[in-house]
Amino acid sequence: MVIGGYQSSCIKGDKMRIRINRQAETPIYLQIKNQIRDMIIAEVLPEDFLLPPERNLAQTLGVNRSTVMKAYQELKADGLIVSHVGKGTVVVPQVFKPSMPRERPVRELSWYQFFNENITTNSEHLISDIMSLTNCDKVLSFAGGFPDPTLFPMEQLEALQGELFKTAKCMLYSHSPVEGNPALRESICQLLARRQMTVSSREIGILSGSQQGLDFVARIFINPGDTVVVEEPSFFGAIQIFRSAGARVIGVPIDKEGLRTDMLEALLIRHKPKFIYTLPTFQNPSGVTMTMARRSQLLTLAYQYQVPVVEDDPYGELPFEGVSLPPLKALDRYGYVIYLSTFSKVLFLGLRVGWVVAAPAIISKFAHLKQLTDLHVNTPSQLLLDQYIRTGLYEKHLLLLRKEYAAKRDCMLAALEKYRVPGVSWEKPAGGYYIWCRLPKQVSRHKLVANAARRGVIFLPGEVCYPDGTQGESFARLNYTFAQPEEIQKGIKQLMQAVQESVQLAEEPEWDMGSYMRPIV
Amino acid sequence: MVIGGYQSSCIKGDKMRIRINRQAETPIYLQIKNQIRDMIIAEVLPEDFLLPPERNLAQTLGVNRSTVMKAYQELKADGLIVSHVGKGTVVVPQVFKPSMPRERPVRELSWYQFFNENITTNSEHLISDIMSLTNCDKVLSFAGGFPDPTLFPMEQLEALQGELFKTAKCMLYSHSPVEGNPALRESICQLLARRQMTVSSREIGILSGSQQGLDFVARIFINPGDTVVVEEPSFFGAIQIFRSAGARVIGVPIDKEGLRTDMLEALLIRHKPKFIYTLPTFQNPSGVTMTMARRSQLLTLAYQYQVPVVEDDPYGELPFEGVSLPPLKALDRYGYVIYLSTFSKVLFLGLRVGWVVAAPAIISKFAHLKQLTDLHVNTPSQLLLDQYIRTGLYEKHLLLLRKEYAAKRDCMLAALEKYRVPGVSWEKPAGGYYIWCRLPKQVSRHKLVANAARRGVIFLPGEVCYPDGTQGESFARLNYTFAQPEEIQKGIKQLMQAVQESVQLAEEPEWDMGSYMRPIV
Repeated sequence: MVIGGYQSSCIKGDKMRIRINRQAETPIYLQIKNQIRDMIIAEVLPEDFLLPPERNLAQTLGVNRSTVMKAYQELKADGLIVSHVGKGTVVVPQVFKPSMPRERPVRELSWYQFFNENITTNSEHLISDIMSLTNCDKVLSFAGGFPDPTLFPMEQLEALQGELFKTAKCMLYSHSPVEGNPALRESICQLLARRQMTVSSREIGILSGSQQGLDFVARIFINPGDTVVVEEPSFFGAIQIFRSAGARVIGVPIDKEGLRTDMLEALLIRHKPKFIYTLPTFQNPSGVTMTMARRSQLLTLAYQYQVPVVEDDPYGELPFEGVSLPPLKALDRYGYVIYLSTFSKVLFLGLRVGWVVAAPAIISKFAHLKQLTDLHVNTPSQLLLDQYIRTGLYEKHLLLLRKEYAAKRDCMLAALEKYRVPGVSWEKPAGGYYIWCRLPKQVSRHKLVANAARRGVIFLPGEVCYPDGTQGESFARLNYTFAQPEEIQKGIKQLMQAVQESVQLAEEPEWDMGSYMRPIV
Repeated sequence: MVIGGYQSSCIKGDKMRIRINRQAETPIYLQIKNQIRDMIIAEVLPEDFLLPPERNLAQTLGVNRSTVMKAYQELKADGLIVSHVGKGTVVVPQVFKPSMPRERPVRELSWYQFFNENITTNSEHLISDIMSLTNCDKVLSFAGGFPDPTLFPMEQLEALQGELFKTAKCMLYSHSPVEGNPALRESICQLLARRQMTVSSREIGILSGSQQGLDFVARIFINPGDTVVVEEPSFFGAIQIFRSAGARVIGVPIDKEGLRTDMLEALLIRHKPKFIYTLPTFQNPSGVTMTMARRSQLLTLAYQYQVPVVEDDPYGELPFEGVSLPPLKALDRYGYVIYLSTFSKVLFLGLRVGWVVAAPAIISKFAHLKQLTDLHVNTPSQLLLDQYIRTGLYEKHLLLLRKEYAAKRDCMLAALEKYRVPGVSWEKPAGGYYIWCRLPKQVSRHKLVANAARRGVIFLPGEVCYPDGTQGESFARLNYTFAQPEEIQKGIKQLMQAVQESVQLAEEPEWDMGSYMRPIV
């Protein structure tokens, strides 16, 4: 039964082959044990397979009997084999299938009983649905907040990436500090200086997109039952995450000049919110920019009532005329503002790199949460973005984006005008990503989403942007950066036809509200 | 005062220059408004600067007076300028500096009053400190759980990256589905088949490292006050995140065969935990592997008491002899196991890509949280890893790592033997990253950490791995994968000398426990 191999011996007992390597560092008993174990796991040796007696196996392999004994002992300890008097040593039956008493069958787990209830909301699947559909060729998407991928500076990136393989070498894939790569933090200081902010890199933390900043703000500040003030409408991803942390989210209306600071004071007195969340520049979803006077009033109220301000600024570098107003953070002399921004809107969403600017006490809190939740941001992306800024490519790319996105905005505005339906109105945004479109009052939002989807167009239904639902008004948030001009033309035409139809059908009874997102899944 | 420019007119009134471009799409009133705004923001026009009267400016620029009026109106609406009868139109004082009543000075925010208390723990800064120090040239680090960067397959990665620029084009930097790139999810199915798991890609979710999986598990399952069972000792990052979600973390001891299932049942009955967290293979920090018998018993108990099992398996593909035992997930026929794994330990930590395998109800919950917290995992890293697996490079790299890490383990074992100090003991791990080293009883842990750091060596003090502190015993977790063999030799020598010294100094009074981490900051 012995099959000789070079520097090794083998045994073939039915299905059993063992090779001994006398030159290996692994002790021989362990070589035997491991090979038998592997054969059992791979089911080469089936249940109840009778192993050769220790003495026989030792003889065949040319080793001491004690060596085989030791191997068998370990296999027994692992629960893989068992010795029965008179029967010998056999492979344990059903060794991978935990045994259960027959009279008590295993119940499948009902997972829902285990879930923490905070995490569920009605619009739960909205963003993931939009993200899936936006990559689908047949759908014209005005729903997401995605940059135009055809404008990605791929050749420049490829060249920078090639350089990094030469210069960074294996550091390219090593871990990064929790707070972010030091060089990138300094590059961001330079970039912020152009946003009229003078900050040191100690005040900057790198994040997996500014969305993570919102999550961290929620986790650091919100205890269940706390109140948070947001603009009405506001970014629905923020409303969702604040709510899932247990916050009561209260809206303060906006008008053409931004957040209604005249209404804010009463809310601050009455609700003592943990913080105020605002998107002052090219707001999501409304496109509105807060005037300088309002910015000043907002900060004055924050100081007076000792309320931190969370400023979300993903779009500030995309003004289509002139420059943007300075961010609140640039105006804030007392460290009340936590500023979030990202590369997702001006460069590419796929890297998932954003940052926070705040007082060192907050940066240290963010770093602690980062370490707890996912350690640090992807290293190669941090190095790539650092180079992209340092070489001046970022600044040049911004100029291109402003020009292209302004043209797309104008294209969408022209299409809205061309296919105008009575009752539909909008303002021209001065920058950013969105046109906030008021719909005729009699339109059923739910029918409109479904009807537009049938015509191959998706948009963001406005009500998800209101913490407490709209008071009877319907809006659509239309993104103009992602689609190409001819798609914008075609999509707006289809959408306006769907609006027209929905107005005509407005007398019919409404569908079930709960399931209206289904058609675009 | 007029300075002619091509296709434009200018006015110079003291510091004020305006250029009109009659060919631009931007309306002329807006060109005027934006330029004045920019000059105010840039403080080219200081506080109280007197603007020219509308009529004069219109004349100088060669535009209608109504155009200038419109521009001034908008600037007033923005709060940037103001008209006083008799005085004229001036730049608003302190426009960027929110005005505060003089009698009530602004108080700096005391941030700590706003923080959610759950997030703070004693060992708060441990991981970030280790991550900073590990990149410091002068420190020999056995503290982290980092792979050896000199083994990164840089040439292969560079080639794959180059290919991706050609094939994926702009998709390389576009957004990904929330659950992860579909191709990578399929590649991971193939990879798991070699871990004896048959799963479909629907059961896989891509995460920012398996650390994010732990965070999500905590957020999905834990309500404040819930109990969670972990091994004792266990991965301290898991203990921290479970605690910060408000869980009571209870330990069940391990021995050489892994989790003491004989002690588990009583805990399940008494505490009704939300889940059991286990690292069955090459455990962190102990290096122990759970035997097949214990795996079977653990699942049987989970089924019997209807408790989900969270299996963390970062090291399973790094056995140094034979193959690993099948993961619990491979043995689980009833979907009770949530399996987490990662590319951080077998490839490179810097990409931050891990994954979860679980029942579709859990994957959908994970996807929802992913969308809320950071949208999706970095796209280029997902595409790169997919290619790395598909081309078979991943499998080949594993073979190299097993060989190299086994040699490093042996190098550290030999050094421990060579510089042995009485009272220090350890087991030889059969795979993975760590040697779990028992220290003499009389050693002051706090002095040892400080003393070793002075000698340029850092390690993970064992007590952070125990949910309730060690019962008087001291351990050190020593990582052997990151350092080079000569560094391992030198570092162990220094560490053992530090142990020796600490034993001798054991009679002296102890230092303050609270601040012992300072020396390695």
